[in-house]
Amino acid sequence: MDEIKHAIQDVYGDDYAWCYGCGRLNDSGLHLRTGWDGNQTVTLYNPRKAHMAIPGFIYGGLLASLIDCHGTGSASLALHRKNGHEPEDGVEPPRFVTASLHVDFMKPTPDGATLKAIGEPEEIHPKKWRIQTEVFADDVCCVKGEVIAALMPDSFG
Amino acid sequence: MDEIKHAIQDVYGDDYAWCYGCGRLNDSGLHLRTGWDGNQTVTLYNPRKAHMAIPGFIYGGLLASLIDCHGTGSASLALHRKNGHEPEDGVEPPRFVTASLHVDFMKPTPDGATLKAIGEPEEIHPKKWRIQTEVFADDVCCVKGEVIAALMPDSFG
Repeated sequence: MDEIKHAIQDVYGDDYAWCYGCGRLNDSGLHLRTGWDGNQTVTLYNPRKAHMAIPGFIYGGLLASLIDCHGTGSASLALHRKNGHEPEDGVEPPRFVTASLHVDFMKPTPDGATLKAIGEPEEIHPKKWRIQTEVFADDVCCVKGEVIAALMPDSFG
Repeated sequence: MDEIKHAIQDVYGDDYAWCYGCGRLNDSGLHLRTGWDGNQTVTLYNPRKAHMAIPGFIYGGLLASLIDCHGTGSASLALHRKNGHEPEDGVEPPRFVTASLHVDFMKPTPDGATLKAIGEPEEIHPKKWRIQTEVFADDVCCVKGEVIAALMPDSFG
């Protein structure tokens, strides 16, 4: 899969589309986009030149950000599908926040490749999903992550 | 503590000072700086306007980045001190990489405050340190994190 055609972030409500990681309305942000590939969720990202840990290798905080927004996007995709919707319907999906994030850096992630996060959302509570994610660079899994995503409360904050 | 006078990142070797999170030579980066406050390590950061999750609240990936570089910086400070050095000596310190990162988002982190990460480095192996960190905004702990930092191998990659 080389392209995300229908991303869940494309149909987040305008009020929830400002995230630095995945908000389409955040001019300075990363614009991460997450879609279905069968029963798996996928986010692709080409890091900026500055996103390095040391020259030649990708910064861990950027990888954590990728896993984070991939996680909340995947939970949104999954609950939306459970409710009978796909991103291309144009219906506003439920929005999730990250309750916890775990990242294992298995090996240094080289630069120069499109990063590919692949996950499987699993419902663990009516309002909580677990998303286990693997991040690949050039088909090598360099990072593994887990996000617990919680449905955003009506009054966030 | 309102200011980090002597940060470990100020004395990282030039080859290891390019990190997007904490490299002083990375023009686009966050320039996170970590220093001692007694036996605790502290990193302060004022997020950019764009670093939001939704308007009014800080992006989780930015908080993960803060905990990440605070962790590797704290491990470097701790081993450097064990070796008899302080950042103000100007001696090049050991450099660490992140083996794993865990972040618990306890409550939404409001914008407008200087974020303060406070940690205590604990040696768990001759080449590994655990850094448990709390992140405060306006004296409220919003996020807790744990980094396992490993001494950077000679041939990274």
